Amino acid sequence: MADDLAENDLREKLTTVSVATLSAQLRKHGLNNVTIDGVQAAKPGSRFAGRARTLRYLPHREDLFAERGDGFNAQKRAIESLEPGEVLVMEARGERGSGTIGDILAKRAEVRGAAAVVTDGGLRDAAVVAELGISVFHGGPHPAVLGRRHVPWDIDVPIGCGGAAVLPGDWIVGDDDGVLVIPPPLVREVLGAAAEQERQERFITEQVAAGSGIEGLYPLGDIWQKRYEDWLTTLTDTE
Amino acid sequence: MADDLAENDLREKLTTVSVATLSAQLRKHGLNNVTIDGVQAAKPGSRFAGRARTLRYLPHREDLFAERGDGFNAQKRAIESLEPGEVLVMEARGERGSGTIGDILAKRAEVRGAAAVVTDGGLRDAAVVAELGISVFHGGPHPAVLGRRHVPWDIDVPIGCGGAAVLPGDWIVGDDDGVLVIPPPLVREVLGAAAEQERQERFITEQVAAGSGIEGLYPLGDIWQKRYEDWLTTLTDTE
Amino acid sequence: MADDLAENDLREKLTTVSVATLSAQLRKHGLNNVTIDGVQAAKPGSRFAGRARTLRYLPHREDLFAERGDGFNAQKRAIESLEPGEVLVMEARGERGSGTIGDILAKRAEVRGAAAVVTDGGLRDAAVVAELGISVFHGGPHPAVLGRRHVPWDIDVPIGCGGAAVLPGDWIVGDDDGVLVIPPPLVREVLGAAAEQERQERFITEQVAAGSGIEGLYPLGDIWQKRYEDWLTTLTDTE
Amino acid sequence: MADDLAENDLREKLTTVSVATLSAQLRKHGLNNVTIDGVQAAKPGSRFAGRARTLRYLPHREDLFAERGDGFNAQKRAIESLEPGEVLVMEARGERGSGTIGDILAKRAEVRGAAAVVTDGGLRDAAVVAELGISVFHGGPHPAVLGRRHVPWDIDVPIGCGGAAVLPGDWIVGDDDGVLVIPPPLVREVLGAAAEQERQERFITEQVAAGSGIEGLYPLGDIWQKRYEDWLTTLTDTE
Amino acid sequence: MADDLAENDLREKLTTVSVATLSAQLRKHGLNNVTIDGVQAAKPGSRFAGRARTLRYLPHREDLFAERGDGFNAQKRAIESLEPGEVLVMEARGERGSGTIGDILAKRAEVRGAAAVVTDGGLRDAAVVAELGISVFHGGPHPAVLGRRHVPWDIDVPIGCGGAAVLPGDWIVGDDDGVLVIPPPLVREVLGAAAEQERQERFITEQVAAGSGIEGLYPLGDIWQKRYEDWLTTLTDTE
Amino acid sequence: MADDLAENDLREKLTTVSVATLSAQLRKHGLNNVTIDGVQAAKPGSRFAGRARTLRYLPHREDLFAERGDGFNAQKRAIESLEPGEVLVMEARGERGSGTIGDILAKRAEVRGAAAVVTDGGLRDAAVVAELGISVFHGGPHPAVLGRRHVPWDIDVPIGCGGAAVLPGDWIVGDDDGVLVIPPPLVREVLGAAAEQERQERFITEQVAAGSGIEGLYPLGDIWQKRYEDWLTTLTDTE
Repeated sequence: MADDLAENDLREKLTTVSVATLSAQLRKHGLNNVTIDGVQAAKPGSRFAGRARTLRYLPHREDLFAERGDGFNAQKRAIESLEPGEVLVMEARGERGSGTIGDILAKRAEVRGAAAVVTDGGLRDAAVVAELGISVFHGGPHPAVLGRRHVPWDIDVPIGCGGAAVLPGDWIVGDDDGVLVIPPPLVREVLGAAAEQERQERFITEQVAAGSGIEGLYPLGDIWQKRYEDWLTTLTDTE
Repeated sequence: MADDLAENDLREKLTTVSVATLSAQLRKHGLNNVTIDGVQAAKPGSRFAGRARTLRYLPHREDLFAERGDGFNAQKRAIESLEPGEVLVMEARGERGSGTIGDILAKRAEVRGAAAVVTDGGLRDAAVVAELGISVFHGGPHPAVLGRRHVPWDIDVPIGCGGAAVLPGDWIVGDDDGVLVIPPPLVREVLGAAAEQERQERFITEQVAAGSGIEGLYPLGDIWQKRYEDWLTTLTDTE
Repeated sequence: MADDLAENDLREKLTTVSVATLSAQLRKHGLNNVTIDGVQAAKPGSRFAGRARTLRYLPHREDLFAERGDGFNAQKRAIESLEPGEVLVMEARGERGSGTIGDILAKRAEVRGAAAVVTDGGLRDAAVVAELGISVFHGGPHPAVLGRRHVPWDIDVPIGCGGAAVLPGDWIVGDDDGVLVIPPPLVREVLGAAAEQERQERFITEQVAAGSGIEGLYPLGDIWQKRYEDWLTTLTDTE
Repeated sequence: MADDLAENDLREKLTTVSVATLSAQLRKHGLNNVTIDGVQAAKPGSRFAGRARTLRYLPHREDLFAERGDGFNAQKRAIESLEPGEVLVMEARGERGSGTIGDILAKRAEVRGAAAVVTDGGLRDAAVVAELGISVFHGGPHPAVLGRRHVPWDIDVPIGCGGAAVLPGDWIVGDDDGVLVIPPPLVREVLGAAAEQERQERFITEQVAAGSGIEGLYPLGDIWQKRYEDWLTTLTDTE
Repeated sequence: MADDLAENDLREKLTTVSVATLSAQLRKHGLNNVTIDGVQAAKPGSRFAGRARTLRYLPHREDLFAERGDGFNAQKRAIESLEPGEVLVMEARGERGSGTIGDILAKRAEVRGAAAVVTDGGLRDAAVVAELGISVFHGGPHPAVLGRRHVPWDIDVPIGCGGAAVLPGDWIVGDDDGVLVIPPPLVREVLGAAAEQERQERFITEQVAAGSGIEGLYPLGDIWQKRYEDWLTTLTDTE
Repeated sequence: MADDLAENDLREKLTTVSVATLSAQLRKHGLNNVTIDGVQAAKPGSRFAGRARTLRYLPHREDLFAERGDGFNAQKRAIESLEPGEVLVMEARGERGSGTIGDILAKRAEVRGAAAVVTDGGLRDAAVVAELGISVFHGGPHPAVLGRRHVPWDIDVPIGCGGAAVLPGDWIVGDDDGVLVIPPPLVREVLGAAAEQERQERFITEQVAAGSGIEGLYPLGDIWQKRYEDWLTTLTDTE
């Protein structure tokens, strides 16, 4: 990508606003079906942002697994092709009766510089993975290997994960509230608006903490809007 | 296909044995994960067999639907490309909150000579579809159009449907017990063995109806095996 | 209601178009969350339309049931206050572990002239109810009385049923595809557009039956639009 | 059983009252958890009553199936030991991903004079079973053989089925509303009270059909109680 | 309330016994359906007690949300009307596909002195809310705003939450085991009996820790009852 | 047991390998259905291994609970009969609407030296149990007593738990990934192979951490196999 610097800058900024705020901004663009539901962070407090790479599993079928399950299969090719800052998103149909990633592959993804792995299937070696330096969001721990429920199939295709459609190249952002898909054409506008929303909410929270009621304050009505603008001028440059 | 006559003959014969029997034979080949679960016939008593064509829906996402939802979309292209005897299998992730096929497209599939449509999503115009001359197996009736829950995406790709992996070209067979996927390399062997199993079960059922106990009879033990072979010689050619 | 004749006329016409078509028209008004899901007709082939009356059950709680469960409770008051053409919609939270209506109350609703009863809870006396002259849509048969899972609570309040919000006075329409809620301000416009849509689909179906492909035909493109308009002129007045 | 005549008489009478009425009577004895939920009749309109025999499946485990799955296993022994009028109730943990009975064993149960088979697992050969002379209530059709999900384990032990505890010897009664368990010590009292309740409901239904309101009528208040008693005297002996 | 001192005293004492013990005592009064199931504390270890205030959401419907979703809606009015020690309980039908409360409103509830917020819907800003000084029990984190799944509707009405009926004014108590509803007429008796039960269990636990078997000890049989009474006399006043 | 020393040694060694690894080894023996799914540790980080003892609950039924629910019931007898190192596994049908064990019985199990309690039902007194010295794996916290959903029935019988069949005497092993059943005839072979697999994975993880790609490394291909063997020689005896 020619524009790597900007890309990295964007990724970093996306982790400074909450998934909840970004979700609210996408809703203003008419996008309500962009949350990957039913997944949790292996380590609470994880935050990440990055471009989607994708991996699709088919339901387990004995003859297909014999052909595609072992060796340098689609799952391993997906991991091995990750570039720094990317997020590997897996379609496991919400089936949690086996792992879809474990400690070794998660470690390899970390070493390759990936930002996160997101799967709506199970996670093996959950305790070890929680200690790694890469964010892993998953549908629940399970000790069994992939092949109990899945055939690793193909990579870099559009998928569904946790009820959301994900295309390679989509922006994926996650924190303790969940994981969100942002269509690339909207990402800069949504990020800018989210930063502004978080400034407003910081102001509102301060007022609430000081005892103000929320009528007219949240969302900002005319009177509080004026005070907010004054408050903005008091912020130092670094805030 | 060069071998059309044989293909048609095979399709016809597959509808003369039950899905339950074919399933038992596939199990003997180690294949247990080949049933499309959670679907029902629009008209009870439907039976069909044919080669799979596939259609994949992604979860509804507003921006993607705007690009791919309307006009001559993947769903319509799938219908319009069906050849006689084929079965269109749809991946709808078991999501039944909208129709995935309705009366007009089902009628068009019938006119094109398709053997069946199988979807793990909803069915619109269920009462009209039940009267058509094509088998439709579905996850439940729903009045809403496709776009409420799905984006029509691509055709002729491997999919999951009702928990089973389906590849284009797989044999698909359905009756009141459900829908089954048969990998093409196994179809002739499985069909032959199924026909033999049904002959045995016809014999066994006659004995049970006449008052015999099942120990040693079902499955055939040595003594009953002999009697079965005698019984076979009494069958006329057309049986 | 001063306008009873028009009201009855409207009700009758609403049963001449399918729920699927009405649902498609509501979607054009931005209304996607108006289907009562997970309910089935006690007798297949039932069709109805009418204004909503509502009944709300609370989850069973022993002390509340002692106060409100017996005698001329909210459930019975709801039935006894039904007017001709009305539809009683019950909020049972999708809990099917008891009946929420049985044969005697359904019969009384029929005698009072109600158009239908819709519940996302269970149905008692399912076989008898299927033979009545009133449409009953329900979440599944169950032999237990109401009090096993519910406390009859209040009537004529906004409710949720099968995942849809229903207000007293909303139009409710049902057929084999399911049950739909139509906000009163939209009902005439939606009905008119639905009738036109069904004329188009009748034309389209005729073309499909005669062998036409669907590209440009469904939905009507420019060329087929012209032919459709010609076809319209051939219809007799009574069609 | 020494008292066979009375036993047969009881069984016959239990099929003349509805499951819904019997359930209401059991509730008067404090028994609310006696319904086998989530099962349906292979043939709508089926009614049966009989003493429970039981069969328990364990979850499928490959090593246990190798020991106990084949040959004259617990499932077949259960069928082969059925006596006239008995009902075989199966514990399948609500797991419907395989059949738990098929046409041959159901036929054998019929020939042995069993009243019914009840399973909260799947049914194989559903279309054939629907035509037999024995009632079969099941959790849904499925083509796969038992061993896909279950190991046949033991017979004549207490079990859970459809959420209800069933002991060998319990009375089991079924109709289109579902299946009910009646503890033997209560059966005569419950049956008598149910017959009286149905007489009352027959009277009430007549009044409702004739236009009476339900307040004071259902349940019978003082005024209607008197009229009911008069009406009773008008019944002929055979009613 | 004239009796504020007693009320506060009661509230405080309710947090000194466990929800499990209170639940056992309510069962002795015949109350088994008083647990709000499927909710978890935003911060493990949270304990609270207070009087219920209620808020009801309807299922999302686009036309109703347009009328009632924005501005000083029912949700905000509910928060703004909370009095010290109250618990806001929300009916969200167990639908977790959006937040039903977030950090700003939770903070406002805290500032107003509310004891807790309980919702069977989702929680936004889960990480921030976990750090607040108010207990929040919820159905799971979700980043989306309320309007994705709900219309805020009315306050101070009887509701269902997590399968339990809740009336305004009911006592609500929560800890790591879950959330419980106590009907006000029973609260003093239940609290007293719970305190006694916990004394007994403290004694029993000591004996178990010291190696005693549980037969005759748990629950207290005659022999251990006597020893328990002796032990009671050894307790200092402050215990 | 004559062979106590070996038994204890085995138990200890089973806790030094992960459940995930043991699961992979069982799969090599054709055993895929040996995981107890849907349970979590009361205290994250718990690890245990031991021989199964079993306890079976029936679904709650009022008349049966009256007979078997109170006093020194099956649940208490199970606890009181536990021997050092044993694991009590409970069949609760995945029903989590009540506790199936609480702090006093868990403490008694600990005092008796049991290794763990595993239940697919609810856990009472979750916070206290988390602090005990015994591992408890459960389906979720719930404050209600056992009798809300269950009748304690019998002990030392084959059961199903979390979808797995468990026989008394089976080896049960648990950690943060879940709980596994190991048939006794396989345990030594599986343990040995698991230890070898973990050595390999330790080597592989070191290589991945050092930057190696996984192709040919995981699983070990010819080249890496050689290096692994060299690496083995560098390990000190105590590793």
